[in-house]
Amino acid sequence: MSLLPDLAGSRVALVGLIGGHLDDEDIAERHARALWSGICEPGDGDAGSLVDACGAANALALVARDDARAVAAVEGLDRRRADDALARWRPRLAPAALDAGLDAARRTGARLVVPGDATWPSRLDDLGRHRPLCLWVRGALPERPGPTVAIVGARAATSYGEHVAMEIAADLAGAGIRVVSGAAYGIDGAAHRAALSAGGVTDALLAGGVDRAYPSGHADLLSRITRTGAVMSEVMCGSAPTKWRFLSRNRLIAALSDATVVVEAGWRSGSLNTAAHAASLGRSLGAVPGPVTSPTSAGCHRLLREFDARCITGAGDVREMLGLDDELLPGADDWVDQATALRDALSARSWRRVDDVAQRCGQSLADVERGLGLMLLDGRVQHGPAGWRLVVGR
Amino acid sequence: MSLLPDLAGSRVALVGLIGGHLDDEDIAERHARALWSGICEPGDGDAGSLVDACGAANALALVARDDARAVAAVEGLDRRRADDALARWRPRLAPAALDAGLDAARRTGARLVVPGDATWPSRLDDLGRHRPLCLWVRGALPERPGPTVAIVGARAATSYGEHVAMEIAADLAGAGIRVVSGAAYGIDGAAHRAALSAGGVTDALLAGGVDRAYPSGHADLLSRITRTGAVMSEVMCGSAPTKWRFLSRNRLIAALSDATVVVEAGWRSGSLNTAAHAASLGRSLGAVPGPVTSPTSAGCHRLLREFDARCITGAGDVREMLGLDDELLPGADDWVDQATALRDALSARSWRRVDDVAQRCGQSLADVERGLGLMLLDGRVQHGPAGWRLVVGR
Repeated sequence: MSLLPDLAGSRVALVGLIGGHLDDEDIAERHARALWSGICEPGDGDAGSLVDACGAANALALVARDDARAVAAVEGLDRRRADDALARWRPRLAPAALDAGLDAARRTGARLVVPGDATWPSRLDDLGRHRPLCLWVRGALPERPGPTVAIVGARAATSYGEHVAMEIAADLAGAGIRVVSGAAYGIDGAAHRAALSAGGVTDALLAGGVDRAYPSGHADLLSRITRTGAVMSEVMCGSAPTKWRFLSRNRLIAALSDATVVVEAGWRSGSLNTAAHAASLGRSLGAVPGPVTSPTSAGCHRLLREFDARCITGAGDVREMLGLDDELLPGADDWVDQATALRDALSARSWRRVDDVAQRCGQSLADVERGLGLMLLDGRVQHGPAGWRLVVGR
Repeated sequence: MSLLPDLAGSRVALVGLIGGHLDDEDIAERHARALWSGICEPGDGDAGSLVDACGAANALALVARDDARAVAAVEGLDRRRADDALARWRPRLAPAALDAGLDAARRTGARLVVPGDATWPSRLDDLGRHRPLCLWVRGALPERPGPTVAIVGARAATSYGEHVAMEIAADLAGAGIRVVSGAAYGIDGAAHRAALSAGGVTDALLAGGVDRAYPSGHADLLSRITRTGAVMSEVMCGSAPTKWRFLSRNRLIAALSDATVVVEAGWRSGSLNTAAHAASLGRSLGAVPGPVTSPTSAGCHRLLREFDARCITGAGDVREMLGLDDELLPGADDWVDQATALRDALSARSWRRVDDVAQRCGQSLADVERGLGLMLLDGRVQHGPAGWRLVVGR
């Protein structure tokens, strides 16, 4: 006996949700993806493969029919694994609960976005069979997303960490870079707030349904985010934010972003999970160092040491990591001028003594010595007992 | 007319300095190297090549004869460069000044150590033609140096930096690792003091002569260092610590050590010069991060970002960098135990849910979830909707 007829009511609800400009087959597919968001756990690769292989509506029909043989055949799975998958999915195929989720989405103004939609974030496709089946979105997603950076970190952040998160988020968001985070207390909240304060756009990825403000203390922040950005989740409205869903949500934060920057994180922080996803997706990964005496920075130092994360000291380092800025780091401008003057005062052919160089460029001996030391570090000059010389070609 | 006969007096002084167990030729060579330490600037590669090619005494005779043709021939230099070298060296070939330097060495109890001596630090040979011609040593150098770590950093250190330098130095020195530094105020001094407090051995490399306590406020510290370690310089006693000599001294700190750790350093700190030497010599390089809001840590973050320095959060990281410790980092022991319990509770063949794993290993759900997240980060487990599974071979 098929369960599908029982779902007809929710189909009507869904049509109300997405408007009427779609043909029946589109509506059926979108409807089925919406239902899947309440049936399988996020990142369920068996569900992803099945839907990719035969479409969401057909896949749902196979579940409704409890057809393990067909599921195994479509997915190329062994029978036991198909049985396991159906055992996970079928208990959730409860029309009343699914309809309640769709109703909650409608009440909260959430929109359904599925692969192929103009605003579907194509970066999520890098997740392969772990790609979300749909996104529930409050607010707005852009049709062509520009540079996007995830700023994440500890809930139990220090004022240092929140300060740095805000500085970086405000700078990036003010420069038109989209700031993605997880809406948690601590670093996440600081990043969202600073991005908004800078007049920028920020997106929040939730582990539970978008109809629930989680944490509840961020209800107002989440509303403010939706005015220009998006609050998103891959799970149906009404779903609770479980630990598993937090871990799964982290893969979306990493996948949506060109780079992930971890600002503060304890030794076993969940932010390290986001960082691991970013690294495995080939996204850039940065970590903000802090005092080695602060347990809240231990996870960041771990990322620097074990995951080859880039050391991020400010927004300039993030832009540089993304290749968005070929100029030198902010604050180094005075050094650029000094280096130019030093180059002019040096020769590639003859050695010149420091006092000679100082006289030629009109800088103090101390400044010239420091500057030459720095250029030596970069391999731009050579030093010897007879003085300093430019290295040709640097 | 040769200047050599005029140096006979200083030869007698030198014999007093080194004892009488050497034949005449040895004495002449040692004497000549001692004189060279007052004649050429440290790291003078032309002097190094000339002495390597024909011996220190013969090289000195060529200088005394002002024989540019012979210098050029021995070194394979063009004539102009040989002229330049002689122009650098000859003004310093002043017997009275050189004798005063040897007298100062004798008065201060400094010993002369030259390449080939049992206590000559063979690591310095990696400097090639920039190897020092000799070392003036107060205190004692070991015949077989064990693991050695340079801990250097800013003079204008913060209490944070000094605290971390002391923690690391005390731990390493207490474990029998020699701690090398530059005796400056700030990080250097903190490292020396902590090494001594821990009952360890520490060496100081000076930019000027070892008869001068520099900085003078560290006179007592330098004396204490010589009781078990060495205070060394490659320049003759009486020589002032010039900027050039500080930069040259830095190459010795780097060369003497298996690893260099920079604890705090400003954006253009001289410690970056030591770090660059360590890197170019193929030595391990570490940097201690700090708050990105602290200018005193900017140089360390630069080393992490641009020089691929290892992120050092404590002595355990230094030992790990040196391969001295195969165990996990200190403080991670509890995690080792937990990870072992988790491995036992997981299977490589079947997926297990978190509550199942928690029951099997007798840990709380929260601990199991955090632990699994960490193992996921290391690639030791896989996760899926059906639970967690061990990755075989990890």
